[in-house]
Amino acid sequence: MDAKYINPFVIATKSVFKAMLSIDLTIDRPSLKNSKTASGDVTGVMGLVGDKKGTVCISFKEIGALHIYKTLMFDEATEINNDVVDAIGELTNIISGQARKELEDGGINLKASIPTVVVGRDVELHFITKLPIISLPFHFQMDGNQETVYVDFSLE
Amino acid sequence: MDAKYINPFVIATKSVFKAMLSIDLTIDRPSLKNSKTASGDVTGVMGLVGDKKGTVCISFKEIGALHIYKTLMFDEATEINNDVVDAIGELTNIISGQARKELEDGGINLKASIPTVVVGRDVELHFITKLPIISLPFHFQMDGNQETVYVDFSLE
Repeated sequence: MDAKYINPFVIATKSVFKAMLSIDLTIDRPSLKNSKTASGDVTGVMGLVGDKKGTVCISFKEIGALHIYKTLMFDEATEINNDVVDAIGELTNIISGQARKELEDGGINLKASIPTVVVGRDVELHFITKLPIISLPFHFQMDGNQETVYVDFSLE
Repeated sequence: MDAKYINPFVIATKSVFKAMLSIDLTIDRPSLKNSKTASGDVTGVMGLVGDKKGTVCISFKEIGALHIYKTLMFDEATEINNDVVDAIGELTNIISGQARKELEDGGINLKASIPTVVVGRDVELHFITKLPIISLPFHFQMDGNQETVYVDFSLE
């Protein structure tokens, strides 16, 4: 897939994490996602429609989602409750909005549906598309450990 | 929520089941979905964008999804494999397409993203919206038993 699709998602994710969470993300090499299992335990899913159509998912492990919630809301949660889900949904909204803005600068106009957030271990999350699914693994430091958030997307 | 939103999904679901599967669906009273758990084990999720934005989910229990697969593809599956997932994704595509056509007749134009299919037991599937989520429980006969397929949607 063309870098013109990948870069907007990279730039958007990094800038939103920096602005909203003061978190500096690093990124590993993008890969093609073949696994049908969700990349994490808490996944925000957003449909995209316009010049292209597609889906973007932002997926955290439970521990990562709880950390993001704490950092964003200055509130502690011990499990994935509705408040945490809402925060991850909102973050999905904002990252996809920023990515759409970046894509727009490249002449690709998209609108977003409403996000859904899928919660569960070993949940399968299948994109029904013939096109490749790009997986972007971002890392951040959390209490001295490295955590990963995956941004997976496909545009056709 | 206005009947002008509900009827298109009812008509579309019934007509697609009849045309593609020769299945006559009956419908129970629509309800507001408060539970955050997916209505079934296999759920097709489609984002909708246009004059409104929203999400529609079509959710089967495992046994129902296998029956639909068999009826649609003349092929038997004993578990929710990739072929079954693709069939449910395609059905989600077609039902949402038909619903969009019905909504268009009422002056509401929507486009669809690509479907995702979520597989797992007791998966939570949260719509991130302040608006109500409408749940339409459809029943069909299967080997002498009654099975249910849920069409849940929200449009804002």
